[in-house]
Amino acid sequence: MNEIRIIEVKQSVFAANDKRANELRQELKEKKVFLLNVMSSPGSGKTTTLSGIINLLKEKYKIAVMEADIDSDVDARTISKNTGVDAIQLHTGGMCHLDADMTRQGIESFENYSDYDLIILENVGNLVCPAEFDTGSVANMCILSVPEGDDKPLKYPLMFEVSNFVLINKIDVLDYFDFDMDKCKENIRYRNPMADVFEICAKTGQGIDTVAEYIVNKIEDWRK
Amino acid sequence: MNEIRIIEVKQSVFAANDKRANELRQELKEKKVFLLNVMSSPGSGKTTTLSGIINLLKEKYKIAVMEADIDSDVDARTISKNTGVDAIQLHTGGMCHLDADMTRQGIESFENYSDYDLIILENVGNLVCPAEFDTGSVANMCILSVPEGDDKPLKYPLMFEVSNFVLINKIDVLDYFDFDMDKCKENIRYRNPMADVFEICAKTGQGIDTVAEYIVNKIEDWRK
Repeated sequence: MNEIRIIEVKQSVFAANDKRANELRQELKEKKVFLLNVMSSPGSGKTTTLSGIINLLKEKYKIAVMEADIDSDVDARTISKNTGVDAIQLHTGGMCHLDADMTRQGIESFENYSDYDLIILENVGNLVCPAEFDTGSVANMCILSVPEGDDKPLKYPLMFEVSNFVLINKIDVLDYFDFDMDKCKENIRYRNPMADVFEICAKTGQGIDTVAEYIVNKIEDWRK
Repeated sequence: MNEIRIIEVKQSVFAANDKRANELRQELKEKKVFLLNVMSSPGSGKTTTLSGIINLLKEKYKIAVMEADIDSDVDARTISKNTGVDAIQLHTGGMCHLDADMTRQGIESFENYSDYDLIILENVGNLVCPAEFDTGSVANMCILSVPEGDDKPLKYPLMFEVSNFVLINKIDVLDYFDFDMDKCKENIRYRNPMADVFEICAKTGQGIDTVAEYIVNKIEDWRK
């Protein structure tokens, strides 16, 4: 059957990828570059959220952003315009995720990437496949937006299992959707009891300062 | 490099899958069973939209639904409760899409599946991978919801290229999002000039009757 063949192939790729991801993470550690991998469904607000966070951190840290998409350069242009930090667009050539080697190619395309304190990877909008591939990141952040529904952690287990922290975005439209915040947090913790969860509205900026402070603590802890 | 190896493997799977999909489609044609494949991002309203469509068609046609998810049986229970038609849940075991053989397994799990006029496959919530695998369906329907943004056809080309018709859902919240309907339709037609596009609100039922009638025409045309 087709799917058995696919699974075998993925396992061998996974094993090689895990090794490559660990090598990249080790190199980044030596150079004191913190790599943050950001994942979510299409349209949950990754780019807007990142713009807000970066604007709060860019005085403190030297930041670069890698925007991954199958096509278009909409997001890299948006980040660059909104924040002024260095941004590049990674085209995946149809691929639904980034692996460690693709991430490395992106990082090494910056001149003197070791000058950056923080490199942010905005992964392909996809709640399934990016979770399967370690990019070499120090931390994984997942965004779930209110219109998507509170049941998503039940349907997409791995994404929530591999995310160190989860932002629940678009809380300004809570009144217009059948979304139970307590139930959503319960569903996230069912998949990952260790995940930190934050409520935000990227459009208005609500809650972004708390997330930015949390990321500063992550970076400083990791540098020790 | 890792990604080249992955692409080679996918191409061999694709070739085999296309053949298997055509075989399934031919069998369904002989048995006069119309298979509709429904794709979208997580949380764009597939299950609610399908409930509305099925309730308008279930007197005319004998219908069955296959709900695909990585985990949980939320959707099959919802469809069954909302419509009363036969529904099964397909667990993909972590897979991000369904291929033709997985679809066949689902169809053959119904007793006497040739008794059905219409079998609906609700694919895994994912705007990338399901578009890459022909399921054997007669038609592909894609749902894009307003909160996801009008730029999604630019970022996820293949999904819009392979969809015969696109529903723009959640138009009741247009006022709360920065979504340009004309621009969205232009982006869809940029990817696929042949795609029919419908505006709906699955929650209130707005526009569902038009889509149901459109599907009736598709089924009747195909049966001739």
